[in-house]
Amino acid sequence: MKLKVTGLEGVVAAETEIGYVNGVSGQLVYRGYAAKELAVHHSFEEVAFLLWHGELPDELQLKEFKKKLASSRRLTPELKQLLDAMPKEASMMSVMMAVIAASSGSAPSWPPTIEQAIHMTGILPSIIAYRYHQTHSAHSSQAAESEHREHAPDSKHDADWSEPTEDLDHVAYYLHLLFGRPASPAHIRAMNAYMILAMEHGLNASTFTARVVSSTESDLYSAVAAAIGAMKGPLHGGAPSGVIKLLEDIGSKEQAEPCMRAILGQGERLMGFGHRIYKTQDPRAEALREVTTALAGDDPWLDLAQHAEQTAIRLLAEYKPDRKLFTNVEFYAAAVMRAVQMPSMLFTPTFTAARIVGWTAHVLEQSQNNRIFRPQSTYVGPMPAGY
Amino acid sequence: MKLKVTGLEGVVAAETEIGYVNGVSGQLVYRGYAAKELAVHHSFEEVAFLLWHGELPDELQLKEFKKKLASSRRLTPELKQLLDAMPKEASMMSVMMAVIAASSGSAPSWPPTIEQAIHMTGILPSIIAYRYHQTHSAHSSQAAESEHREHAPDSKHDADWSEPTEDLDHVAYYLHLLFGRPASPAHIRAMNAYMILAMEHGLNASTFTARVVSSTESDLYSAVAAAIGAMKGPLHGGAPSGVIKLLEDIGSKEQAEPCMRAILGQGERLMGFGHRIYKTQDPRAEALREVTTALAGDDPWLDLAQHAEQTAIRLLAEYKPDRKLFTNVEFYAAAVMRAVQMPSMLFTPTFTAARIVGWTAHVLEQSQNNRIFRPQSTYVGPMPAGY
Repeated sequence: MKLKVTGLEGVVAAETEIGYVNGVSGQLVYRGYAAKELAVHHSFEEVAFLLWHGELPDELQLKEFKKKLASSRRLTPELKQLLDAMPKEASMMSVMMAVIAASSGSAPSWPPTIEQAIHMTGILPSIIAYRYHQTHSAHSSQAAESEHREHAPDSKHDADWSEPTEDLDHVAYYLHLLFGRPASPAHIRAMNAYMILAMEHGLNASTFTARVVSSTESDLYSAVAAAIGAMKGPLHGGAPSGVIKLLEDIGSKEQAEPCMRAILGQGERLMGFGHRIYKTQDPRAEALREVTTALAGDDPWLDLAQHAEQTAIRLLAEYKPDRKLFTNVEFYAAAVMRAVQMPSMLFTPTFTAARIVGWTAHVLEQSQNNRIFRPQSTYVGPMPAGY
Repeated sequence: MKLKVTGLEGVVAAETEIGYVNGVSGQLVYRGYAAKELAVHHSFEEVAFLLWHGELPDELQLKEFKKKLASSRRLTPELKQLLDAMPKEASMMSVMMAVIAASSGSAPSWPPTIEQAIHMTGILPSIIAYRYHQTHSAHSSQAAESEHREHAPDSKHDADWSEPTEDLDHVAYYLHLLFGRPASPAHIRAMNAYMILAMEHGLNASTFTARVVSSTESDLYSAVAAAIGAMKGPLHGGAPSGVIKLLEDIGSKEQAEPCMRAILGQGERLMGFGHRIYKTQDPRAEALREVTTALAGDDPWLDLAQHAEQTAIRLLAEYKPDRKLFTNVEFYAAAVMRAVQMPSMLFTPTFTAARIVGWTAHVLEQSQNNRIFRPQSTYVGPMPAGY
């Protein structure tokens, strides 16, 4: 028997002042600002501040805020020890979920605070980078085979793990930590725009999860950990691997047209075009196109993506004239990921490191006027005799 | 501005064949059986099998099933090492959430399986008991202060940690593991009934969380870990500490009446009576009363609880004749917890070790016809100029 699951489509679960998504008109608004404008003209820090506080920071507020966020970055010896004890086979998302869950302190903490949101947002890139080095460094197989207790907590990854001491902004710090060298300004700018656009998108499954968990007056760490669990599912946090493959198959501007003609000629789908919600221009794709255009010549993959998109739009109008297929955010997200050489195992974790801002903003908002989530189910099984 | 959160009250989010809750008629049904009958006449294993498979096991199936569940109990050295690395100040619920999150293996695993549900249900009591010994044993303060890496994974808690080798059923094993000695038959029977009655209760916040997380095709471990995060919230997994205090204040049968008259005479609330959902007899309280009656004379706290309840009912009719207040499940849950001397920090974890059966049954059911949960929010914030 097929049981009905509604998915709560069309059901309003909350009022919010954080974000507005309109797929028909192609609008994405964060706290009264077009997300597109924020992504092009503002920093990760400014937009995180906006989502949490409701307004953009002034110069002094921004300075203070950056300092707070930066002070959350450093992994304590205890946290490194916990990361070292994580099962070898655990995925990055599972490790992130587990470490955040374990970090909530001794007591249930209600209501949630912006300080906690800052702490988690600040520490997450360090958790990702540390685990990445742990499992993918030159020494990783040897390190993984040896017993953890034979190592002092700080010694194991010293060879290839270095925390930049410079005064770097959040996105620059993340890229530096991950790759062990300063990122180019073009890469920082593209990634900054991507992460801003990934911060918030209404009551998607992970944001909704965070609100449901928090509605029991559970703490912010548990709510975020739970949201990571939802983001882990491929129907939600799925990586834009298809688009990356497309861009790699194309390889050069000259090959864009013949390569995509071959795909469309076989009646196959062109990855990166069309979206479940956006039936017109996806404002996130527009923003990333604009940033990419401004960076023309600075990175070959961003240049290729822009050219490939123009070609795709032209070919789609030729092959599928009756369907309105617009570039979706995955197309440019993939281009950014490919440009900065983000390993595919870090796509969803990087998405998570951005979306955590929206999760925490929603939980903070809900704590102002909380009510426990407890929907109904309809029992369609048998009943005992006499009931 | 107070933003509306609906809590989805009255909204049907899923059809289910697992459980039926009717607070008006006082009915709780698991897969066609009255939960009350199951709790009085069946074992934890039989009812877990029922919730997962849809029917009670025959003798051979039960034997096989018990073997499988028992084989999941033992903590591997790796798992002990992970538990040893958990922050000292982390609460038991946080540790359970983190360890389950970290145990999901390398890849997203969809669809969820009964084997995974058995594994988690089997291992959870061991995780709870190990952490409990770790933080509350005679050696705990010394152990906590010393560095983990100085100890071989197996050596640290050997003094007070022993895994029973006998062929014990799930509930008996849990109590033995926790207290380091065999539990009495009365305690096992009372706890067995409590854990069956705690397994399932419709789309409560934690079960709903598990379904939302799993709806992204995330794995069963992540869904359960997220549900633990929801259970951690005091509005959901709150412990029956108020009733325990009441029973301890009463202390003896003779004191029941004067003690409760003093409370009611001051216009205070009598803990353990009245329920948000059940406006008549709570079938879970009825079941525990029946089991308690059958165990008369076997445990002084169960005897006291039964006497105190009868007195309370009589006094409530006298002091609040216009209000229909019935004994709720917390009253007898508290009595069972007090009887077995469960430390209060383990109330919610024990509830969790039972409710995990319902969570996993719901996720397994939903995976048969899944749809991602994505409700709507209503944006009530400002709009950019021109929108």
